Amino acid sequence: MYDPLLLPEIREMLLEGDAGAMREFCEVFHPATVAENLEEFTDAEIWEILTHASRSRQVEVFEFLPLDRQRELVGSADQERLAGLIEEMAPDDRADLLSELEPEQVEALLPLVAQAERAEIRKLLSYPESSAGSLMTTDYASLPGEVTVREALNRLRLQAPDRETIYYVYILDDQRVLRGFVSLRKLILSHPERRVSDLMDSDIISVRVTDDQEFVAYKMAKYDFIAMPVVDDQGRLVGIVTHDDVLDVVREEATEDAHRLAAVAPLEQSYLTTPLPIIVWKRVVWLVFLLGTACVTAFTLRQYDSAVDLLPWVAWFLPMVMASGGNAGSQSATLIIRTLALNEAQVSQWRMIAGREVILGLVLGLVLASIAFVPAYFLSHYHLTGALTVAATIAMVVLVGTFVGSMLPILFKSLGMDPALMSNPFIAALSDVGAVTIYYTLVFALLV
Amino acid sequence: MYDPLLLPEIREMLLEGDAGAMREFCEVFHPATVAENLEEFTDAEIWEILTHASRSRQVEVFEFLPLDRQRELVGSADQERLAGLIEEMAPDDRADLLSELEPEQVEALLPLVAQAERAEIRKLLSYPESSAGSLMTTDYASLPGEVTVREALNRLRLQAPDRETIYYVYILDDQRVLRGFVSLRKLILSHPERRVSDLMDSDIISVRVTDDQEFVAYKMAKYDFIAMPVVDDQGRLVGIVTHDDVLDVVREEATEDAHRLAAVAPLEQSYLTTPLPIIVWKRVVWLVFLLGTACVTAFTLRQYDSAVDLLPWVAWFLPMVMASGGNAGSQSATLIIRTLALNEAQVSQWRMIAGREVILGLVLGLVLASIAFVPAYFLSHYHLTGALTVAATIAMVVLVGTFVGSMLPILFKSLGMDPALMSNPFIAALSDVGAVTIYYTLVFALLV
Repeated sequence: MYDPLLLPEIREMLLEGDAGAMREFCEVFHPATVAENLEEFTDAEIWEILTHASRSRQVEVFEFLPLDRQRELVGSADQERLAGLIEEMAPDDRADLLSELEPEQVEALLPLVAQAERAEIRKLLSYPESSAGSLMTTDYASLPGEVTVREALNRLRLQAPDRETIYYVYILDDQRVLRGFVSLRKLILSHPERRVSDLMDSDIISVRVTDDQEFVAYKMAKYDFIAMPVVDDQGRLVGIVTHDDVLDVVREEATEDAHRLAAVAPLEQSYLTTPLPIIVWKRVVWLVFLLGTACVTAFTLRQYDSAVDLLPWVAWFLPMVMASGGNAGSQSATLIIRTLALNEAQVSQWRMIAGREVILGLVLGLVLASIAFVPAYFLSHYHLTGALTVAATIAMVVLVGTFVGSMLPILFKSLGMDPALMSNPFIAALSDVGAVTIYYTLVFALLV
Repeated sequence: MYDPLLLPEIREMLLEGDAGAMREFCEVFHPATVAENLEEFTDAEIWEILTHASRSRQVEVFEFLPLDRQRELVGSADQERLAGLIEEMAPDDRADLLSELEPEQVEALLPLVAQAERAEIRKLLSYPESSAGSLMTTDYASLPGEVTVREALNRLRLQAPDRETIYYVYILDDQRVLRGFVSLRKLILSHPERRVSDLMDSDIISVRVTDDQEFVAYKMAKYDFIAMPVVDDQGRLVGIVTHDDVLDVVREEATEDAHRLAAVAPLEQSYLTTPLPIIVWKRVVWLVFLLGTACVTAFTLRQYDSAVDLLPWVAWFLPMVMASGGNAGSQSATLIIRTLALNEAQVSQWRMIAGREVILGLVLGLVLASIAFVPAYFLSHYHLTGALTVAATIAMVVLVGTFVGSMLPILFKSLGMDPALMSNPFIAALSDVGAVTIYYTLVFALLV
């Protein structure tokens, strides 16, 4: 996604060692644009180009590089340069990078970083993956409530936190407990002599440091915040999660869930940048597993051979019977997985969901059964009991598929696992075995 | 998701007509919290409670109500009240509401709204659904470049745009062409006598008014903006898309794609609030369609009955052969659909993607074929050609499934349709018919 017009220009700057042009390139373009163009160069070339930019711009560009590239660059940089970079990085981006490095590398880097930063780094690294704590930055603006607007603005200029984290100012008491927040907009628009505590929103909306990142995304979407305050068990402010990180989380989680639902172990990078052997591995593990379940189906079918000998048309409806259960089950699983992901329902509502899905399963099963009756009646040479057996099987398989498909994600979530863990092909495979068993049991009971 | 502790309190306020308490409830809590609690009341009760809040708070709360509830409330409000509300709503939320109303209702409302607003409303309503234009608000702050920081802050106080739209100030020339932007943070931190044009970021990053909302989300995620400027064909600023709307879009699109992939016509509301008959309808259309394709499979199987008579074990492997193609196809389709949704690949890269998927299909097919050979050899009573036929079919079906699964989303996108339109169950159904045909063709050629 680099700019094909820019690339030759950058190469020329490098060749000619044109320091002014390199500085201009780094400073004029958005750091994201600089980063995506730099990706095309070697580590040594990237360091060479970045040298000419201001320290703060170097850090900004570096933060926009993909994590695996950041890790590579860390390996090729001299220690002093690295320490400066690490020290100036935004706390959340820094924690992301350090958690990618080997523990020994981190231990080698930490002594180079100022004492205060070091404690903060260790703290951020300690939060579990995909918790609010692992997502947050400690770079926020805070004030006591009793200052005036004028004073608040002056203090903000001194705190001058990075990027968008200045737009909400958090009001803390002397225990650092969150008491409210006031937006920079409100500060700008208010009389300079007013007290900040009179202006602040005191309906405290926050997340806990241990909350899951999907819950953070839900709360951000609900309240339209630019940043969500993160508090500890005592209600003390420990960080904020910013809108840009939440957007990334939602995009990543949607991709992960989609991959899981299609029986692909989630890719860590984008599809096009993931090497083929890794994609093979992420796909083949599930395909082999599903092949195994198809094997069970084959063994099950072997038990029922005498039916096929007597009534060959019975086997023709096997794919229909199997697909109906699998399709209905995948529908239910996906509906519930998205509902849980959007926080629109809780695990505790499982009874209500089960009730709805049983009704849905009954209705869908009956509709499909009545439609399937027609070709079954025709292909079985007007064998009424035969056609009714096909129809009854479909009704039962759809009901079971719907019920199991809707309850599995809830079960997984209640066990602390990813609700999307159980892929739709797996539900289809389960349904295959179930459908064969139900179908042939009915066939033997009613037809043979 | 209302607060069960708050609800009885609100009922009491209503019963006692306690104006002070109702005003406090509306003003103290976040408007999103007020809105979600109000949802539990009747339209008349909602209007009664809101009456006691300030006009601007009434509008804020109203904007947080779900669209269908807003539409109902519009029907039960008196015209004058409505006109005031509509006039003060954020332009994007207003356009969303008006596009939900009947055209006659809109025409009845427009004369009550000020002339300037009317033109703006008509303009916003004219953009196609899910374009940047339909997502943007016209409520943004802009300045000419030659003013000083002090002047800029004073002018901003006068413009005082709503909510977070104040945080980026756009610099326009006298043709209203976008020349750059400066963040409120930079303004606050800069010397009051500096010129805004010296401070501004002039690497102009924007989207076109006709760009798709997924592209807007991609650019927002890339540049970490709070708001993305939207320009027309001449580069003139026409609006901005804010971070909160993008977050909603990404969550909605992910849900829509997941539903489509599982053969559910996307729900318009959340799963739990959608009435069961509507869910039945959204699911049954696809299930019936898939039943139809299973019928084709049944008719196809009928053609090949003589093989089953001779070699009963051939039929036992049918589910395995069908599932392998469907699973591999769904994997490819999902990987490509997410890659397109995240803007990580373009339709024009189809050749490269096809190349990758053919390699993947060959490798995955060979791995699965060698594994499947073992049970086939065993269940066919050590029939070597028979087991090889099963293995060869699986290799071919996986290759074809992978290729077709990856190319269908690209084909749909290039035709201007949703890449996720073709659901995974449909790919599985296609693969079923294909697998049966390939399998029995090989069986007849090699075994019978």
